[in-house]
Amino acid sequence: MKKPIIGITMGDPAGIGPELCLRVLDEPEVLQQCVPVIFGDMTVLSRVARTCGLSEPACTIPLREWTKKQKIGKPVVVDCGGIEGQAVRPGEIQAACGHAAYVYIEAAINAATAGHIAAIATAPINKESLQLAGIPYPGHTEMLAALTGAERVCMMLASTEITVSLVTTHVGYAEVPAQLTRDRILDVIELTVGVMKRLGKPLPRIAVCGLNPHGGEHGLFGCEEQEIVEPAVVEARRKGLAVAGPLPPDTAFLPEKRKKVDAYIVMYHDQGLIPFKMLAFDKGVNITLGLPIIRTSVDHGTAFDIAWKGKASANSLIQSVLWAVKLS
Amino acid sequence: MKKPIIGITMGDPAGIGPELCLRVLDEPEVLQQCVPVIFGDMTVLSRVARTCGLSEPACTIPLREWTKKQKIGKPVVVDCGGIEGQAVRPGEIQAACGHAAYVYIEAAINAATAGHIAAIATAPINKESLQLAGIPYPGHTEMLAALTGAERVCMMLASTEITVSLVTTHVGYAEVPAQLTRDRILDVIELTVGVMKRLGKPLPRIAVCGLNPHGGEHGLFGCEEQEIVEPAVVEARRKGLAVAGPLPPDTAFLPEKRKKVDAYIVMYHDQGLIPFKMLAFDKGVNITLGLPIIRTSVDHGTAFDIAWKGKASANSLIQSVLWAVKLS
Repeated sequence: MKKPIIGITMGDPAGIGPELCLRVLDEPEVLQQCVPVIFGDMTVLSRVARTCGLSEPACTIPLREWTKKQKIGKPVVVDCGGIEGQAVRPGEIQAACGHAAYVYIEAAINAATAGHIAAIATAPINKESLQLAGIPYPGHTEMLAALTGAERVCMMLASTEITVSLVTTHVGYAEVPAQLTRDRILDVIELTVGVMKRLGKPLPRIAVCGLNPHGGEHGLFGCEEQEIVEPAVVEARRKGLAVAGPLPPDTAFLPEKRKKVDAYIVMYHDQGLIPFKMLAFDKGVNITLGLPIIRTSVDHGTAFDIAWKGKASANSLIQSVLWAVKLS
Repeated sequence: MKKPIIGITMGDPAGIGPELCLRVLDEPEVLQQCVPVIFGDMTVLSRVARTCGLSEPACTIPLREWTKKQKIGKPVVVDCGGIEGQAVRPGEIQAACGHAAYVYIEAAINAATAGHIAAIATAPINKESLQLAGIPYPGHTEMLAALTGAERVCMMLASTEITVSLVTTHVGYAEVPAQLTRDRILDVIELTVGVMKRLGKPLPRIAVCGLNPHGGEHGLFGCEEQEIVEPAVVEARRKGLAVAGPLPPDTAFLPEKRKKVDAYIVMYHDQGLIPFKMLAFDKGVNITLGLPIIRTSVDHGTAFDIAWKGKASANSLIQSVLWAVKLS
């Protein structure tokens, strides 16, 4: 069987993304299962390779030539001309880095849409650098949805220990209640069931969390469970899905409960990310559901404090690439 | 050294509280470290003892006689006349049970205030039964604050794995932001430092969580970190306390971070309760800080589904009694 070609975006040049890409190109399991193609800047990768004492990538090709290529059989860096290596100040928020990170993603999306790559795995970007560069998206998920014209997307974090899908993602705490609707929760349930089927679970067991402490205690501490979450759960069951909830959030993630759940649907970022990172930090992968292309990502940030120091673990990016292969 | 007398309230008669009290009276470690005094109803305890196959308490005394006693040297049930054993429907929400649960707490508070007992450990109550009985408090913490006239209180969950203090407790998700103030956060920090000192840590390491995803990312997803949490942290440091934060909530509870933290200050119920229950379910204890009396509690609910079935674990109530001894 032919190995799938997996595109990997380099992420913010001032973060740990370039180092992770270099490590992924040297990872036997990755090379065995796919052909990795880095969308980044060769001058940045070369500088990071020297700084961190890692091997330089063997092969590079300019973006304009890549777009003409139909086939590729070995690992390669697609040089996107996002930024010059010398212009990067490691560990700093820079508009030029935000711009470059965006350029890599755009190039990878075009390649995926054209069918040149089977999936995209993304290294971390910095939201403040993006904003400084005038890129109007709070994160990857929103950017991918807009660039591919997807109508309903959600962020799922997957691992062997726990999997969570988010109804709301990168919004302030106070904005969450207004964004919860029955239809949005139902969309997230359906998108999650869809990807779980693709991963080999024909009838995945889904658990939907409530929003309020103790699940609202029948309306004593908020009514979102009764008015929004429960109707979504009822409708999902009517469609034949195996859905439990709304669960009181604080006991939803106990070991006994987790054994009976294939994926959790959480109402807000930290409701899912706190338990996920406790159980699967550095072993998890972020999957964007609902796109016309397959996209996975690391579950951590740019880690500016250890950028370009040769200390970063590529575990999560490696997992992202391997999950991208599973989903291809 | 004389053993301290620890009052234990029986909780909602229709829940697992009565069974837990019976088990505590039979627990060697409890009997070795203190004299347990149950504030409850003897007819309920007798009926539960028969149903669950547990020993009946050896000694009982009516509440009106207890109030005249100054000394007690052996375990005893203080019969509060809250409800008749035959009137309880196990596992059901009942106004009469809510009322009885309140009567036990009131009696225990009076005993503690009068100095007859050194501390109170409470079995779980049911908020809906309380409400049906017209008791105007959402939980123990609020009830204890009102009955003792305490001005600033907070709920702390303690265990050997993790300790968290809550800035807001039993309020709906949407009501949290309006309740956060610099002064409230500072109060919770100071109350927490106070109890940690009592537990033998002269300069406890306190970590304060932010409210928003990623701690707001410098205002991109909410400004509470900059406007409310950070000023509280700064003020606490100015007072010489060892306080870190505001931390991004999703990475605050990673194992590496936990090693460097004696107690977390969390902004809302599930921010603290999700990690706490994952790490210390059934091993934790709830301590009310800021009261003129010492009060600890189980970290679980009435568990109506297993009430009066002989299946309940008394672990958390036993821990509550032992922590009450430590704090006495």
